[in-house]
Amino acid sequence: MGSKSNYENASVIIVGAPMDFTTSFRPGARFGPQKIRETSYGLEEYSPYLDRDLSDASFYDAGDLELVFGDVQRSLEIIENAAAEIFSDEKKPLFLGGEHTITYPVLKQAYKKYKDALVLLHFDAHADLRADYLGQINSHASVIRRCGEFLGWRNIYQFGIRSGTKDEFEWGKTHTNFYPFEIIPSIAKVLPEIVGRPVYITIDIDVLDPAYACGTGTPEPGGCSPDDLIKALGMLKDFNVVGMDVVEVSPIHDSSDRTPILAAKIVREGILSFFQYPTSNI
Amino acid sequence: MGSKSNYENASVIIVGAPMDFTTSFRPGARFGPQKIRETSYGLEEYSPYLDRDLSDASFYDAGDLELVFGDVQRSLEIIENAAAEIFSDEKKPLFLGGEHTITYPVLKQAYKKYKDALVLLHFDAHADLRADYLGQINSHASVIRRCGEFLGWRNIYQFGIRSGTKDEFEWGKTHTNFYPFEIIPSIAKVLPEIVGRPVYITIDIDVLDPAYACGTGTPEPGGCSPDDLIKALGMLKDFNVVGMDVVEVSPIHDSSDRTPILAAKIVREGILSFFQYPTSNI
Amino acid sequence: MGSKSNYENASVIIVGAPMDFTTSFRPGARFGPQKIRETSYGLEEYSPYLDRDLSDASFYDAGDLELVFGDVQRSLEIIENAAAEIFSDEKKPLFLGGEHTITYPVLKQAYKKYKDALVLLHFDAHADLRADYLGQINSHASVIRRCGEFLGWRNIYQFGIRSGTKDEFEWGKTHTNFYPFEIIPSIAKVLPEIVGRPVYITIDIDVLDPAYACGTGTPEPGGCSPDDLIKALGMLKDFNVVGMDVVEVSPIHDSSDRTPILAAKIVREGILSFFQYPTSNI
Amino acid sequence: MGSKSNYENASVIIVGAPMDFTTSFRPGARFGPQKIRETSYGLEEYSPYLDRDLSDASFYDAGDLELVFGDVQRSLEIIENAAAEIFSDEKKPLFLGGEHTITYPVLKQAYKKYKDALVLLHFDAHADLRADYLGQINSHASVIRRCGEFLGWRNIYQFGIRSGTKDEFEWGKTHTNFYPFEIIPSIAKVLPEIVGRPVYITIDIDVLDPAYACGTGTPEPGGCSPDDLIKALGMLKDFNVVGMDVVEVSPIHDSSDRTPILAAKIVREGILSFFQYPTSNI
Amino acid sequence: MGSKSNYENASVIIVGAPMDFTTSFRPGARFGPQKIRETSYGLEEYSPYLDRDLSDASFYDAGDLELVFGDVQRSLEIIENAAAEIFSDEKKPLFLGGEHTITYPVLKQAYKKYKDALVLLHFDAHADLRADYLGQINSHASVIRRCGEFLGWRNIYQFGIRSGTKDEFEWGKTHTNFYPFEIIPSIAKVLPEIVGRPVYITIDIDVLDPAYACGTGTPEPGGCSPDDLIKALGMLKDFNVVGMDVVEVSPIHDSSDRTPILAAKIVREGILSFFQYPTSNI
Amino acid sequence: MGSKSNYENASVIIVGAPMDFTTSFRPGARFGPQKIRETSYGLEEYSPYLDRDLSDASFYDAGDLELVFGDVQRSLEIIENAAAEIFSDEKKPLFLGGEHTITYPVLKQAYKKYKDALVLLHFDAHADLRADYLGQINSHASVIRRCGEFLGWRNIYQFGIRSGTKDEFEWGKTHTNFYPFEIIPSIAKVLPEIVGRPVYITIDIDVLDPAYACGTGTPEPGGCSPDDLIKALGMLKDFNVVGMDVVEVSPIHDSSDRTPILAAKIVREGILSFFQYPTSNI
Repeated sequence: MGSKSNYENASVIIVGAPMDFTTSFRPGARFGPQKIRETSYGLEEYSPYLDRDLSDASFYDAGDLELVFGDVQRSLEIIENAAAEIFSDEKKPLFLGGEHTITYPVLKQAYKKYKDALVLLHFDAHADLRADYLGQINSHASVIRRCGEFLGWRNIYQFGIRSGTKDEFEWGKTHTNFYPFEIIPSIAKVLPEIVGRPVYITIDIDVLDPAYACGTGTPEPGGCSPDDLIKALGMLKDFNVVGMDVVEVSPIHDSSDRTPILAAKIVREGILSFFQYPTSNI
Repeated sequence: MGSKSNYENASVIIVGAPMDFTTSFRPGARFGPQKIRETSYGLEEYSPYLDRDLSDASFYDAGDLELVFGDVQRSLEIIENAAAEIFSDEKKPLFLGGEHTITYPVLKQAYKKYKDALVLLHFDAHADLRADYLGQINSHASVIRRCGEFLGWRNIYQFGIRSGTKDEFEWGKTHTNFYPFEIIPSIAKVLPEIVGRPVYITIDIDVLDPAYACGTGTPEPGGCSPDDLIKALGMLKDFNVVGMDVVEVSPIHDSSDRTPILAAKIVREGILSFFQYPTSNI
Repeated sequence: MGSKSNYENASVIIVGAPMDFTTSFRPGARFGPQKIRETSYGLEEYSPYLDRDLSDASFYDAGDLELVFGDVQRSLEIIENAAAEIFSDEKKPLFLGGEHTITYPVLKQAYKKYKDALVLLHFDAHADLRADYLGQINSHASVIRRCGEFLGWRNIYQFGIRSGTKDEFEWGKTHTNFYPFEIIPSIAKVLPEIVGRPVYITIDIDVLDPAYACGTGTPEPGGCSPDDLIKALGMLKDFNVVGMDVVEVSPIHDSSDRTPILAAKIVREGILSFFQYPTSNI
Repeated sequence: MGSKSNYENASVIIVGAPMDFTTSFRPGARFGPQKIRETSYGLEEYSPYLDRDLSDASFYDAGDLELVFGDVQRSLEIIENAAAEIFSDEKKPLFLGGEHTITYPVLKQAYKKYKDALVLLHFDAHADLRADYLGQINSHASVIRRCGEFLGWRNIYQFGIRSGTKDEFEWGKTHTNFYPFEIIPSIAKVLPEIVGRPVYITIDIDVLDPAYACGTGTPEPGGCSPDDLIKALGMLKDFNVVGMDVVEVSPIHDSSDRTPILAAKIVREGILSFFQYPTSNI
Repeated sequence: MGSKSNYENASVIIVGAPMDFTTSFRPGARFGPQKIRETSYGLEEYSPYLDRDLSDASFYDAGDLELVFGDVQRSLEIIENAAAEIFSDEKKPLFLGGEHTITYPVLKQAYKKYKDALVLLHFDAHADLRADYLGQINSHASVIRRCGEFLGWRNIYQFGIRSGTKDEFEWGKTHTNFYPFEIIPSIAKVLPEIVGRPVYITIDIDVLDPAYACGTGTPEPGGCSPDDLIKALGMLKDFNVVGMDVVEVSPIHDSSDRTPILAAKIVREGILSFFQYPTSNI
Repeated sequence: MGSKSNYENASVIIVGAPMDFTTSFRPGARFGPQKIRETSYGLEEYSPYLDRDLSDASFYDAGDLELVFGDVQRSLEIIENAAAEIFSDEKKPLFLGGEHTITYPVLKQAYKKYKDALVLLHFDAHADLRADYLGQINSHASVIRRCGEFLGWRNIYQFGIRSGTKDEFEWGKTHTNFYPFEIIPSIAKVLPEIVGRPVYITIDIDVLDPAYACGTGTPEPGGCSPDDLIKALGMLKDFNVVGMDVVEVSPIHDSSDRTPILAAKIVREGILSFFQYPTSNI
């Protein structure tokens, strides 16, 4: 799924953020971006779901960022700088993780640009709402908690959540727009609330059942199917999406490569749903 | 998922029975208990399905029994002795297999205590109703046949069965409460029949489709999903369950570990559904 | 799943066609036939879906053809000769692939016998309707295009397609009976159109979601489940099926073996649905 | 490595003994015989080491014995009966394991025929001299102890041993011809002692370093190389070998298949070294 | 191991030839070039064996050729054209396979340039001297036979051969400079014969024991070690090497990636040994 | 390889340091300690190399330290505190890595106790002498550089090194006692220099060839064999060893488990060589 244009002409910029230093269970998400690109060669550019084709889209793959192994703070800064440049160039970033922590610096820059109009759609098995995780506040397990602190809790919509502490679930129920378990009916319900607003989408690949996406760090049985997620992205067609990420793809735990192939398909559906036709920002 | 209390205080006792000597297709279930424990570290103690938390439950992990490799008879005796002790201490056993054969000695002790009131709920891809298997009568393929001989056929409920010989299916249809294929509607139907009775639950992990539980000895395509099984366990919430086992998890056939993780989740949902609030036994 | 009779007495002949030379993404389908046979030992001969048993069926496993590695043309001739012999002996072939290209020579011989009455049912994730693929006209990606050129486009029914170029989808929509995405409702709709006609069925294992069938060369997320496909085959029970193939099983990409086991089950359901009771040909 | 003749004409009979019930660490050796045959297709029939060719040898592959899963005693009887028939037909058995325990019943029959003239050459990482193993006396860990009890300790030669309890090493040093660690110089030393005597060879594949033979149940780092073992077999060229086994090949622990390929090569070298030219027995 | 210069400035051109269509046992070598590049990131540019550094060398990685899947003849032409261009630009090719068949078109072009002065050094487990292989004359198993037909048998030196038919070994012994088994003493012996002559080196990765290089199509136990091969290349330091290839790396059969890493190291040692200091051609 | 005594009575304390945050190539060493323990059950307690038995040794396994994922500084402090406690209790630490970075805090505490008498023996494929690595100074690639800064370069002995930058090799040659490539002759040479001095040994498992130890983060072909390393440890028998670590075991890259088994064997040989008989410290 090589990009077709150069940075200047593209409206969407794909960036890999190969970070997995705070991963608590199984590291390996650093190889996600590379493997998603590699396996995307087996994927068609045409989406029969949307009847659109990547050859009509304008996107550029800027490759992977060079992060500092084991230095969380410095790595998040590098990611944030990359996001800042993309937003300031009036383009839309599509980050490939790496662990979920990378959403935080990207969303900070989205918020800097779109302010309180910004909406976050969060697809995940885990609530990621911990105050901290084993003493680490910039952890994959607390990334949405960090995001809520600046974005405002009511601007966060969470879908597919099926794992967390009792505290996280209580926090979610009382703070965010919290839609655990099945994703399709929930998406349908919230669409009217977000229409017209700038939207950032973060997809933790473990929102899918491990049967479909076993290549991830913290698999949680009981998730949605690829059809569900593709349908959800289709429902967001031509919404004002201003950025997206797909995170927690860990190829080493999937010898069949179906997880990175699925991630590549999600990226394709994302680009074709949201990004093909430039929409005016707020 | 370390246990929180000692044996004396606990009402539920987890015991590993690492036996796979009569396995006919692919051995490896002996490593099930160890791997279920190991991967349970990635699992939350809180169940959002039940809104209950293991930290409120009282269970103890007694580790694995030391069985005699290759000696079926002696190994079954060791398992039966362990079950006898647990039942006589007025506790509830939760065995981790190991092959399905281990259900037989445990159920014998449950029957000794609860007599004809006892009900067996059997979730499995296979009927396990053979008279014998290649000359071995204490085989994983005939374990329910053995159980029916003392428990009484009408006290056995079978769910999810989708494989067996013609004879086994005929035996099932004419002897047990036989509900092949989809599990949810069948469970709903039988609940009124078993309410108040002491219930033993045996879950062969291959009742799930191999997509979700490929780490098992005899995978059979066409099974239920994790959501189905979690829902089924939820429907049994606060029933008078007096024992349970989860068997046939064979980690070596699942390099992604999603099978043992799923087994750990089933154990959690089981403990939280049935075991949290002590119920009076018959 | 050893066959029970010799060639002379059998009405169905199983033949392996271990060819994967034009595979563009991941080769390995050459090992499909051997592994399907090997894993079929774990499968019962009785189908509870159909209440029929292979011990009542008359089929013979003729083993694998000896193809010429890397010589596409010569290999297709060998396959065509084998099919010709089977059809001329008034038997029905059941080919195990190998890549999808093998359908072409078999169908040519079926067409030679059944002429314009012949119907092709094609289950696949991919349309396989390319004019050519990277210069190769006898490619797995253009096999249905080749078939349509002699069979006539309106005699082709395609189910489950969810990947292809824009051109392929347009060709499909304007030429064949084109039913992309979900298979069950589509099958139900076309049954009346094909009743009584001689039917050839080709099943690319990737019509199933990679969660169920990860052992294949070009996995495409978003497919059907084993239950869907078994149900579809059951709906064709006692139709006048004159030949069948199951292709693109690549064991090396599935360390759990659930893909070849599923293929063996599909073969069993196929034999029992279509082949058990000899039907008069047109 | 298909055999070229039928049973009657053959002087060497290959028999698979797919038993792994007493395996204490990692089961899976039951699949050894099948995989050794399967991978032998990639092996030439000509040995450049010996300048001999299997096409000139007379051997027959009788397939696998049907053992009773989990019933050690009955399975050993089946093996012993098979060995008895081969010896009484004046042929030489070559057993493929399966766990090491299978050597015991075969050697018993060899002893019945050749009496005190019989010599056992034992290649292994482990001494296998335990009195019993976790209560099981017919265990893979005590098989040579069992053999010594009838064969006489001085007729046993052990090579390559590098693991055992202190007791086993003391027993070995004081009872058998005990040559731990490197095999080549030891073999050279004992050749004069056994010339002319009927010899039975048992090769536990773990005598090789796990780098070369990782597909085994109890890998022990520090073993010999394939060249060492091939050289050792070559040194026994045209000795009066009357039987042989290759045991403990467990394919599931070797995704590269180099272990069963190596076992097939050892079988080839064995047949060509010892068996090609019938020698008169004592 | 990214290249440091562009095509024009480079003296060595790396080209991937991802062909595996005639592979008879296990396909997968098509992924060799890509994986060798990918894993080379873990390899230092400095060789402590030679005390030379790739940063001082002048080479360019031209990427992979686009071959026609399943079309042997056309693919060999594409490879030959690429080799022709490199030789005519007075550069030296370093091809990454792909199957061994690719050596043939490259060597043809080398011969066209260097004529009868050209020497072929062949490192392999297999003689590759068959007249044809299952009817295919352009096969990996007959590639050296094809080369000898134009190059002249006495200009071929074969090292490490330990597998072949009896005919191949006889052909080798009577036609080529045939040095089976251990490589080091043989190399030492032939150095004086080839000094000053233009040399082409072809390395089949299976010359190494499968313990070191399990990621290959036809593993043959009993090979050399990495140290042996690195030493052999070092002995050729500053010889007049005019081209080289490393073939038969099949990553899917090596989940540890040590085979492609070793191949990358061989490429590094090759470039640093032969290519660093341009030598005058004949 | 369960320990036999409690902390108070033990002279050797085993501690796991599951850190892999600065790993640059392939993370996973965090699972090393757990897997080494788990696979040690297949290892005998008796060493036939040393004729000593762990049942006579006094050691205690203190389990794994709880480190902070992704926080290098804090994690190193936790490790250093653990080492400080062990040294101050007059015991000897044996750390299981984790990445090589963990040697730094342990050695700092050893140096605090033994001052300039302390000697470091370093077995590794890589020099680990970089000033920094991609901006990270506490990296696995610069750990020996860090150690030399306080220990003094002439107190460092490096064995088996076969990879590094040109700068690292020059630094090594001019600063440390630098013995690249083969280990046995080098060890023999330095023994007289270190006799009587307190010795700390750090073993990076990648000093072994990846054939023997493929389960590591940065495999480097061309290393030593298990026999070499066991022999080296035997040569240090009854030297005044005051601490040891075995690092960079990454189980996920070795599906055969031979790497953690080898690590367990190295630990056993270490304990039995150095630790069995308490020696007076300087």
